[in-house]
Amino acid sequence: MSVSQVMGPVQELRHEMDAPGPARRKLSELDLGDVFKEVLELDTGRVRRGIESILAVVARSIMRGEGFRYVVPTRSASNQMYVEELDRIVLKDKTSSRAFANTGTVRKVTIMTRIMGLVWELCNKGIHVTKRDLFYTDVKLFKTQNESDEVLNDVACMVGCTRTSLSVVASEKGIVIGRVRFREAGDLIDCTRMGVGGKAIPPYVERITDIESDAEFILLVEKDAAFMRLAEDRFYSKYACIIITAKGQPDVATRLFLKKLRETLGIPIMGLVDSDPYGLKILSVYMSGSKNMSYDSANLTTPDIKWLGVRPSDLEKYGIPERCRLPMTEHDIKTGKELLQEDFIKKNPAWYKELELMVKNKEKAEIQALSSFGFQYLTEEYLPRKLAQGDWI
Amino acid sequence: MSVSQVMGPVQELRHEMDAPGPARRKLSELDLGDVFKEVLELDTGRVRRGIESILAVVARSIMRGEGFRYVVPTRSASNQMYVEELDRIVLKDKTSSRAFANTGTVRKVTIMTRIMGLVWELCNKGIHVTKRDLFYTDVKLFKTQNESDEVLNDVACMVGCTRTSLSVVASEKGIVIGRVRFREAGDLIDCTRMGVGGKAIPPYVERITDIESDAEFILLVEKDAAFMRLAEDRFYSKYACIIITAKGQPDVATRLFLKKLRETLGIPIMGLVDSDPYGLKILSVYMSGSKNMSYDSANLTTPDIKWLGVRPSDLEKYGIPERCRLPMTEHDIKTGKELLQEDFIKKNPAWYKELELMVKNKEKAEIQALSSFGFQYLTEEYLPRKLAQGDWI
Repeated sequence: MSVSQVMGPVQELRHEMDAPGPARRKLSELDLGDVFKEVLELDTGRVRRGIESILAVVARSIMRGEGFRYVVPTRSASNQMYVEELDRIVLKDKTSSRAFANTGTVRKVTIMTRIMGLVWELCNKGIHVTKRDLFYTDVKLFKTQNESDEVLNDVACMVGCTRTSLSVVASEKGIVIGRVRFREAGDLIDCTRMGVGGKAIPPYVERITDIESDAEFILLVEKDAAFMRLAEDRFYSKYACIIITAKGQPDVATRLFLKKLRETLGIPIMGLVDSDPYGLKILSVYMSGSKNMSYDSANLTTPDIKWLGVRPSDLEKYGIPERCRLPMTEHDIKTGKELLQEDFIKKNPAWYKELELMVKNKEKAEIQALSSFGFQYLTEEYLPRKLAQGDWI
Repeated sequence: MSVSQVMGPVQELRHEMDAPGPARRKLSELDLGDVFKEVLELDTGRVRRGIESILAVVARSIMRGEGFRYVVPTRSASNQMYVEELDRIVLKDKTSSRAFANTGTVRKVTIMTRIMGLVWELCNKGIHVTKRDLFYTDVKLFKTQNESDEVLNDVACMVGCTRTSLSVVASEKGIVIGRVRFREAGDLIDCTRMGVGGKAIPPYVERITDIESDAEFILLVEKDAAFMRLAEDRFYSKYACIIITAKGQPDVATRLFLKKLRETLGIPIMGLVDSDPYGLKILSVYMSGSKNMSYDSANLTTPDIKWLGVRPSDLEKYGIPERCRLPMTEHDIKTGKELLQEDFIKKNPAWYKELELMVKNKEKAEIQALSSFGFQYLTEEYLPRKLAQGDWI
């Protein structure tokens, strides 16, 4: 089978897709009224001014004799909604008031004020820190990192920006290799020349500019073991693609990077995950966002990821030996049944069918199960056949 | 303070050090008799021939009517010893016999035979796989990954090579940035041009060749938060260094990479870890190896790492605020006291004193505690002052 044959279905898919550029609908374009809140990526100048306005409002409230209080958007599940037209979770308009003169909220208000001061300083200096750094600037006040992290999300909602815009980043986990070149903080990075280890995806996606690529698709891999196989075999040399992994649960930096690639290049994304509920959850985090950061979902999510494999129906189709399938635990089955109720599954009949099959057969399999046919079966047989047949959903 | 002033003590230290090249004593050079076993890095041809010899011995044993059995070096703690002259843990000469015709060992013998067959195949193909891939080639036989991993270590000891020589690698975690250039699988990698995210350290260190550097020292950082600060501030531009992190517990790939840099460049290594027993344990794994892979210690360990910081005495010296110090838990104190008994601490009076101080004050602090003086205190004050004063032990 020649490479051009193999890539046929991928190219067709690509032509069906929108042209490069941000093609997704915005919340403001929908006729849903003012009840939903979404945040934007803001530059440091605008974040600083946002914080200043919040404090100006507070100051006026104090002057009026109405006290020191913040109005904070509620981020609980009851205030979240999945919007089908957008294919992501957004926040509804419920807010709560946090007063300094209230024993129940005085700590939160103090923490919030301190965090806003620190973020203002970061924006002023133009540097980034981790959530851990932030926590350590005042351990006695924050007590646990969980508290400063929570308030950080509140502050992002109040300012109306992403958490990354606050210059506070999570640690980096993701790696990338393959047919893409970009500038990172000015340095030219060519991901076809990154040996076998790949390039670490930076925590500050806004430092990435001038993205260029001749890739036909992005291969999004759940685990680093599969990534290593693909990298060592230089899979991207034969099949023009960009290979990315977040090594398990997707981190914010990898999600932002994937989204940026998708919007710049407009090429399809193929997901390669374990055939278990957890693999699907990982795809869903890339596509619809996590509940915890739903306010930020527009900036973090990349809808329309194709589920290439490993799918429950592959176990029969590719004859994965019984000994490499694992029985699903009670907890797996419960998670699978819960996923069947999720909107992102229900709206995609092919996905629903696969998940139903998984829960019915009570069997799961990791990507590594393909190694039972030989260590290079993944790169030499499974993926080429899937791509040539257009076998994704 | 000028940069040359700052680098003075580092340069002096470097001149005191040995010239580049493998300067460490070998086990065979010591007058300890034949009781100790160490493994070597072998190429795939020699590993294949090693496996073939083991099976030839087995075949002859069967032909003589003495049955199918393997002689396996014992890897338990009772067969391990710390050798001061080498500054690492080695295996003593105890072995055990595993017979196929014994219900207690038949499974181990079967697993061992299967693993040797798989490793032979990998060496023949010249590819690498993860421990997880290996496990998945025969789930029903191996049952848990722990079993195939254990046998893999046994096979390495039997062949007399490192686990990495078996072409089975752990997943990659480490990243590097700074003043070093090398070829990785032929690609030229310049770590001064890796943006802010750095380069992922590859799992196959033997693919790294042509290392060149003008660095004066290697800065070994425990956590990625500190790494990110150093990378964003391009610390290596002002202070000629190579910055490495394994993001917590050191993985095999990062340890091999560090060792290779040290042996090629012959420059000092400065460790920057949390001021707690866990930080010291991390330094000890880089220096003396972990008990679990003691047979491989010569190939994985890099002795003579300097403890730059954060040291217990720094908490007073740099006036780390009370609120950023954390009380040690019972478990921390117990671990600290156990460490005081370890050879690698006892043989270094300055380290012993610091650890004693930690256990006495029952206080710990993370690298991030330095953020309480400002987010860039680490790169602009703490490290420059330490380096200028030669404040390492």
